[in-house]
Formats: sequence, structure tokens, C-alpha cells
Amino acid sequence: MEFTLHQIAHILHGEVRGDGNQKINMLAKIQDARQGQISFLANPKYEQYVYTTHASAIIVSKDFQPKKDIKASLILVEDPYSSFTVLMEEYHKRISFQKAGVEQPSFFSETATMGNNAYRGAFSYVGNNTRIGDNVKIYPQVFIGDNVTIGNDVILHANVKIYAGTRIGNHCVIHSGTVIGSDGFGFAPQDDGSYKTIPQLGNVIIEDQVTIGANTVIDCATLLGDSTIIRQGVKLDNLIQIAHNVEVGKNTVIAAQTGISGSSKIGENCMIAGQVGIAGHLVIANQTSLGAQAGISKSVTEEGQRLLGYPAFDIKEYFRSYAVFKKLPDVGHRLRDLEKKIAEITPQSVETPNNGQN
Amino acid sequence: MEFTLHQIAHILHGEVRGDGNQKINMLAKIQDARQGQISFLANPKYEQYVYTTHASAIIVSKDFQPKKDIKASLILVEDPYSSFTVLMEEYHKRISFQKAGVEQPSFFSETATMGNNAYRGAFSYVGNNTRIGDNVKIYPQVFIGDNVTIGNDVILHANVKIYAGTRIGNHCVIHSGTVIGSDGFGFAPQDDGSYKTIPQLGNVIIEDQVTIGANTVIDCATLLGDSTIIRQGVKLDNLIQIAHNVEVGKNTVIAAQTGISGSSKIGENCMIAGQVGIAGHLVIANQTSLGAQAGISKSVTEEGQRLLGYPAFDIKEYFRSYAVFKKLPDVGHRLRDLEKKIAEITPQSVETPNNGQN
Amino acid sequence: MEFTLHQIAHILHGEVRGDGNQKINMLAKIQDARQGQISFLANPKYEQYVYTTHASAIIVSKDFQPKKDIKASLILVEDPYSSFTVLMEEYHKRISFQKAGVEQPSFFSETATMGNNAYRGAFSYVGNNTRIGDNVKIYPQVFIGDNVTIGNDVILHANVKIYAGTRIGNHCVIHSGTVIGSDGFGFAPQDDGSYKTIPQLGNVIIEDQVTIGANTVIDCATLLGDSTIIRQGVKLDNLIQIAHNVEVGKNTVIAAQTGISGSSKIGENCMIAGQVGIAGHLVIANQTSLGAQAGISKSVTEEGQRLLGYPAFDIKEYFRSYAVFKKLPDVGHRLRDLEKKIAEITPQSVETPNNGQN
Repeated sequence: MEFTLHQIAHILHGEVRGDGNQKINMLAKIQDARQGQISFLANPKYEQYVYTTHASAIIVSKDFQPKKDIKASLILVEDPYSSFTVLMEEYHKRISFQKAGVEQPSFFSETATMGNNAYRGAFSYVGNNTRIGDNVKIYPQVFIGDNVTIGNDVILHANVKIYAGTRIGNHCVIHSGTVIGSDGFGFAPQDDGSYKTIPQLGNVIIEDQVTIGANTVIDCATLLGDSTIIRQGVKLDNLIQIAHNVEVGKNTVIAAQTGISGSSKIGENCMIAGQVGIAGHLVIANQTSLGAQAGISKSVTEEGQRLLGYPAFDIKEYFRSYAVFKKLPDVGHRLRDLEKKIAEITPQSVETPNNGQN
Repeated sequence: MEFTLHQIAHILHGEVRGDGNQKINMLAKIQDARQGQISFLANPKYEQYVYTTHASAIIVSKDFQPKKDIKASLILVEDPYSSFTVLMEEYHKRISFQKAGVEQPSFFSETATMGNNAYRGAFSYVGNNTRIGDNVKIYPQVFIGDNVTIGNDVILHANVKIYAGTRIGNHCVIHSGTVIGSDGFGFAPQDDGSYKTIPQLGNVIIEDQVTIGANTVIDCATLLGDSTIIRQGVKLDNLIQIAHNVEVGKNTVIAAQTGISGSSKIGENCMIAGQVGIAGHLVIANQTSLGAQAGISKSVTEEGQRLLGYPAFDIKEYFRSYAVFKKLPDVGHRLRDLEKKIAEITPQSVETPNNGQN
Repeated sequence: MEFTLHQIAHILHGEVRGDGNQKINMLAKIQDARQGQISFLANPKYEQYVYTTHASAIIVSKDFQPKKDIKASLILVEDPYSSFTVLMEEYHKRISFQKAGVEQPSFFSETATMGNNAYRGAFSYVGNNTRIGDNVKIYPQVFIGDNVTIGNDVILHANVKIYAGTRIGNHCVIHSGTVIGSDGFGFAPQDDGSYKTIPQLGNVIIEDQVTIGANTVIDCATLLGDSTIIRQGVKLDNLIQIAHNVEVGKNTVIAAQTGISGSSKIGENCMIAGQVGIAGHLVIANQTSLGAQAGISKSVTEEGQRLLGYPAFDIKEYFRSYAVFKKLPDVGHRLRDLEKKIAEITPQSVETPNNGQN
């Protein structure tokens, strides 16, 4: 990448303060930036660096009022952080190695089809009757089973595994080691204490603009015709468990190592932190926010709640209760003390029904 | 699949009410079923659909007493849910693409052996001296190391990894991405603060009828001759951690993201929910039931307990304590209030030994 | 392996009591050992077996005072457990199948380089401009992207996935299914409720003597030039999540299923148990010890603390509070009882401000 400041300002709908013809060839953090590089100031606590940075240019808010002289040129924008993100994307597009073509050996069923501008890495596998759209990158060692459909502009990183019958939309990214469509965990107890496997005949549907991290697992639905569904715009982190027949609503974001049990339906625009557990057959309202390690054992019906604990309840109340929890030994002492005093001043020396525990 | 109702009734040891020559070609849920499809009624709350469904036939209990007219034909059985499961299995057997033969390229050591009716997918790897039984399906990109033994009727889904020396019984299914036999986590602290790796020389034994989900990990035992053991009929979900030298007892079921630390021995017919953690060197009695996210830090000696919390104790008591936990701020207020009142009515104004905390 | 006792004593800097010419061909636990095998006594509770074992020799402390006759020969050493570990390592080196050479088909970019004494398994993939040192074992189905550097004496087990740009030092071991360098979980919320992906342009650096378990994930850093860093001597277990821009300090040990959120910096020589969660942007002091399932929501500034709970605090205090938590229903009863008594003895019958809850 090499841009002039004018070009960058144009991309960002910003305004240049300084020499618009300067060349910029790299993005960097404001503490580390060197000549020829551009950085940004979003968080006020980094303002000090604006006056000392070696960056050639800094993206700042158009409301920014410098307190000292600044050597670097400035680009004034509405939102410096967003603008910097836009630049990073441009950069990413240009420098990332554009994989294309077919590496051999790879396995592609005679009955499979794939669109234009494809990349299929070595040792990748595409099963029977699978249909893949345009601009799809299949990295090495990816497995795609039979009867899968994949839209356009999808990236499957090395060794993603897609079971038969899965449907994936457009503009999706799935990271290495993730498994889509494995059997739901369904077993019928038998009289002798053993379990019989309930066949898992459904599939997984992943809509558009979904990103899935590494080593995550999404199980298929149980009944034929049913689907585990990840709605448009959902972002899933690494090592997440999504059980059979779950539905994750539009634009919901889920952090690493969270697990959702079978048949639960998560609303839209929820924010679910890491290591959260959600029991089966629940409905979680839109815009629910679940704190890290929360355990959800019943449905959340009111939208926009923030919950914590196991079973989870209002996060502020949780912290208030937890503050007392940390002092519980003291509570025990005070109770005993009160009981003693009461016993002393009670006119008749009635036995207290205290069982002696603190 | 296409059966007549008579044929289905025969399979299910049931009785037809209606035209036994009707053709059935699909299974479906009672709310969704269409003509030519068969459904079932097990849960009374779905009874309304019996009277409105478009299914051609419904499997019902022989004790079922309809309250209105039913258009569909009926098959009367002892247990409608189990019967439907049997049908699903039949269906699964018939429609699932019966993989067979050897796809190339694949790697099969000259010293390995494999029985009849085999499937070996492309890019699968079978190491030296490995012996594999009959009716085994090895999906693409599976890795099987040296000196492994695998019984009959086993399915290893795409990209399962089996380390050298592992022994797997009959009728097992292992899902994609799961790792069997990786090194136990054993390190000896050194005087300089570093750690020295303790070689892990044991193996993993998986008995018959075991099902293991996706991206689960089972470590090998530490000492040569020792084994991490998964007993007959165990069902493991996705993303589970089984450490070195663990033994999981017969017919125990473990849900996703649970972790069992080194050398712990889990009893038979236990039910372990998701995200549970079990410390090392413990013994868990038969038929123990552990609630989601429970933390087990000491052995469970009495059979049949249901536990929750960290450290876990009786689940009912946990919920009783937790009910008070949610009101702890109120407990603090009431204590302070009592202390004030006592101070007021105590004849001599003695200082209370309260340190001022609530 | 076949050694004489003299040879073993020499390796261990120990002293023989008995026939130094005896041949030893196997290591075993003291309860199970047979003739021709050597075992050890470290834990006093196993002393009984010293007098009954069939082992040909036992490694004991030079301070060990037998209470009865011992049939086996002895090797007297400073630390029997460490000595046995040394023997196990020797054994491991000698018996483990020394993989070498290149299995075909495998993919190795024309622009990649690899040192002496290499093993590259079938279906392994090495990308462009990747440089790999001496004595590196790349097991089957390993994926190594472009521009990766790997030092000497590294083992990558079957199907490890290394994204482009990763740097790995010397003497590292990574187990099957682990993913290094996947995208950090970074998304910018948009006005319409959707999220825009923030490109992840940094990399992962793994220093020397690092061991990583199976199916663990380490995300790359966000900004170009930044790195997620795993320092020298770190030991990571299975199914761990390390988010973007995390740094794990030298010789820190982390057990299975723990997750560390973005940009947190973990100190040196920490001991982190399983299923722990650490929030983002925190600093954890050196030698911090975190109990299983702990949740860390703020930085730990004092070194050497032992913490538990969520949010975590001192482990001993946690257990004291938890002891009262288990009796909270009783606390409720006692409070109500006190309130009743106070009401009875209070001169003027003032209403207590108790809202009726227990």
C-alpha cells in the first residue's frame, strides 16, 4: 500500500491539515509509528503521543483541540477509530496473499460444482452434489460432505469440516478446525441402563455475513427437515458449542467457550460473553446481555436485560449480593453475637431454636 | 424409503387403524407433516395437532383415546416415541449415503490391515501395524497412528485423530476433529522455575458402543502399560476434556465442554451436564448426577446424588442457599437494623463487636 | 531398552544395592511391576509394595530406611520421582518410532525451506516462504501457511494448523487439532445493529520450550506489527482459548478449557487451573494461582496470590464465605427469629422495616 494523504482523506471523507502529498505506506499504533506511517487518536488517554509520535500523519476527531504543537500531519474525521478500521480493511485487501486456483492433490466429486474465481487448496475434499458459489476460498484440508450448498464470497480456512447437507450463505468466514453439522447429542435410555442413539437427520443452516472462529462445533438438528440455524450477521468466537436445533438470532455475538444446549432459541442482537452456559429448550429475548460464565437455566422473556451468576439474574443485583457473599463469615459472627445478646436480655431464659451452626 | 402402513406396523409390532396399503415416504413432526408422511404423538400437549395434521399416518399409544375425528390413519404401539425412533433408524440406514471403497490419494501403511466392507476416504492416513476390523468407515482426512487397533462397525468422521497405541472397540462412532491419545498434561517443576516434560507413554482404551462428539480430546495415560479408559456404552458430547489416566464408567453420559482432570475415576450410569469441572484423583460414585457448571473438588462416595455449585453439594440445598444469596443485600440491612435495636435496648450501653461492615 | 542396573545407576547418578549386572527392560508401577522391570518409591503410602513387588529393582531415596527385607535390588538417588522421569525420557527416546523422511503426497511450496533430519507426513502442507529448522517433525495433515518461521527440534502432531505469519521457536511441541493464528474476535458495531469485521493483521509468536495441548486456539494480534505472545517455557493444556494480543509470561502453566480474553497480559510462573476465565485488557501479576473455574474481572497487581470465585478473591476467604453460603437458609431462619424476639421485647411495639422476605 502506498497512498498520499489526499487519497486517504478522500477514502475517509476527511480533511487534511498538512502536506496532502506525503506518502503513507503503513499503519501503526501511535506509540510505535515511524516516518511514512499513519496512526490514529481515539482514546483521550493516548493524547500525549500525538505530540511525540514519529508518525507522518494522525487521524483525529474533527473536534480535537491540540494543546501543544504537533509535528505530524492530521486527517480530521468524524470517528477516528472507525476511519482507521476502514484503512486497515483496504490494507488487508491489498497485502493479503490472494489465493487462487487449484492445488493438487485435492478431491472434487464429479457431481460437485464450484463458481468463478475459486481457490481449492491441496488435500481439500468436496463431496457429491455439493454446489459452491463464486469467490469461494477453500483452504487446504477442508472437508465438505455431500449435498452441501455454499454461497458466494465465503472463506473456509484450513481444515474446516462441513458435514453432508449443510447450507451456508454468502460472505461467511469459518476458521480452522471448526465442525459444522456433527450429530446432535441424543440418546434414549434403555431398561438395562444403556443408551440407544437417536439418529440425527436434520442439518445446519448458516445465513449470510456469519463469522465463526476456530474449533467451534455446531451440531445438526435431530429430525429430517429441521435445522440448527445461525442467522444473518451472527459472530461466533472460538471453541463454542451449539447443540442440535438451536437458533441464534440475527447479529448476535457470542464469545469463546460458550455452550448452548439443544433446541434453545437465542434472540437478535444479544451479547453473550465467554464460558456462558445456556440450558436446553429456552428462549432468550432480543438484546439480552449475558456476563462471562453466567448459567442460564430458564427463559429470558424481557428484552435488554443484563444477567450474571448461576442461575443468572440482574448483573447489578448479582454484584450487590456478591459483595455481601465476600463478607459472609462476618455475617455469621454478627448473627451469633446478636443471638447471645438477645438471650441475655430476654426476660425469661427461653432456648433459642438455633441448631448451633454459624 | 417407501413403506406401506402394514410394513411399518410390522416393524413396530403395532396395529393399523385405517388403510394399511397407504404409502409412506417420509418422517415429519406432527405440526409440519404433509401427505405421504408419518408422524407420532407422545407428548399430550401436542394432541391438538392429531386432529388437524396433514400427515397420512400417526403413531399413537394403544391407550390413546381421541376426543375428535382424526383424518390420518393410526398405528397403535406401546411407546410412540421409541417407535418413531426405530423408524428414524431404519430411514437413516436407507437414505444415508453408504460410503464404501477407497478414495485416492490415501495413505495406508504396508503393515496395516483392514477388514471387509471398508471405506477409506481421500487423504486419510493409517499408520504401521494398525489393525482395523470389518465394516469400518474412515472418512477423509482421518489420522490413525501406528499400532492402533479398531474393532468392527466403527465410524470415524472426517479428520478424527487417533494417536499411536490407541485401542477402540466395536460399534463406536467418533465425530470430526476429536483427538484420542494426545499427551497428558504432566510437567515436573524445576528449581529455576521452568518445567520439564514428563513423557506420556500410556495409551487410551475405548470400549464398545461408545459415541464421542466433535472436537473432544482424550489424553493418553502417563506410564507405559497404563490407559485412559472409556468404558462400554459411554456417550461423550463435543469439546470435552478427558485428562490422562481418567476412567469413565459404563453407560455414563457427559455433555459438552465438561472437563475431567487427571486420574479421576467416574462411576457407571452417571449423568454429567455441560461445562462441569472435575478435579484430579477423585472417585465419583455410580449414578451421580452433576448439574451444569458444577465444580467437583472432592470424591463423591454415596451413589445417586445430584450436585451443583462450586464446590458442588446437594442440588436442592444449593438452590435454597442461592435463593437467600439473591437477597443478601437485604440480609445485610436487616442485620444492621437488629444491631441498632439491640444497642438501643441493651441496659448497659456495651460496644458491639461489629467492625462496621454490612 | 535393555540396561544393566549399573548403567541405570550411572545415568541417575545413583548407587546400586544389589546385583549391578541385572538386566532391566521395562518401567512399571510398583504395584504392577514384574521381573526384569524397574519401579520407584516416592510417596510413602506406597512403601508396603516395596516389600512385596516382583520388580527386579526399585529406585528409592538415599534416606530410605527399610522396615523389612526387600527382595528387589535398589538404586539410591536424591529424588526417586525425578530419577524415574529421567528414565522414562530415555525410554521414550529409544522406543518411540523415529519418524523421518517425507511421505507422499505432501505439499511443500517451492519457496519454503526445511532443515536436516526432517519428517513430513502425508497430506501435510507447507506454504510459501516458510522457513523450518532442523529436527522438525511435521505429522500427517499438518497445515502451515505462508511466511511462517519454525525453529529447531519442534514436533507438530497430526493436523496442527498454523496460520500465515506465525513464528515458533525451538523445542516446542504442539498437539493435534490446535490452531495457531486464527483471526482475533473483533467487530465494530454499526448503526443498523450489524457488525463489521475489524481485519486482524497481526501474528502469533511462540517462544522456545513451549508445549501446547490438543484442540487449543491462539488468535493472532489485531494490528500489523503486533503479536499474541506465548513466552518461553509456557505449558498450555487442551481446549484453551487465547485471544488476540494476549501475552502469557514465561513458565506459566494453564490447564484445560481456560480462556483468556483479548489484550490481557499474564505474568510469569502463574498456575492457572482448568475452566478459568480471564476478562480482556487485564494484567495478572507473576506467580498468581487461579483455582478451577475462577472468573477474573480485574487486574491482579500483587504477586503470589491464590484466587477463586467469580469475581475471584482470596481462595481461603472464598472457602470461608462458601461455608456460610451452604448454610444460608439457616441464616434466613435465624434472622427472622431474632427479628421476632426483638419485636417482642422492644418496649414500644415499633414496626420493623423488614419487607417480609427471608
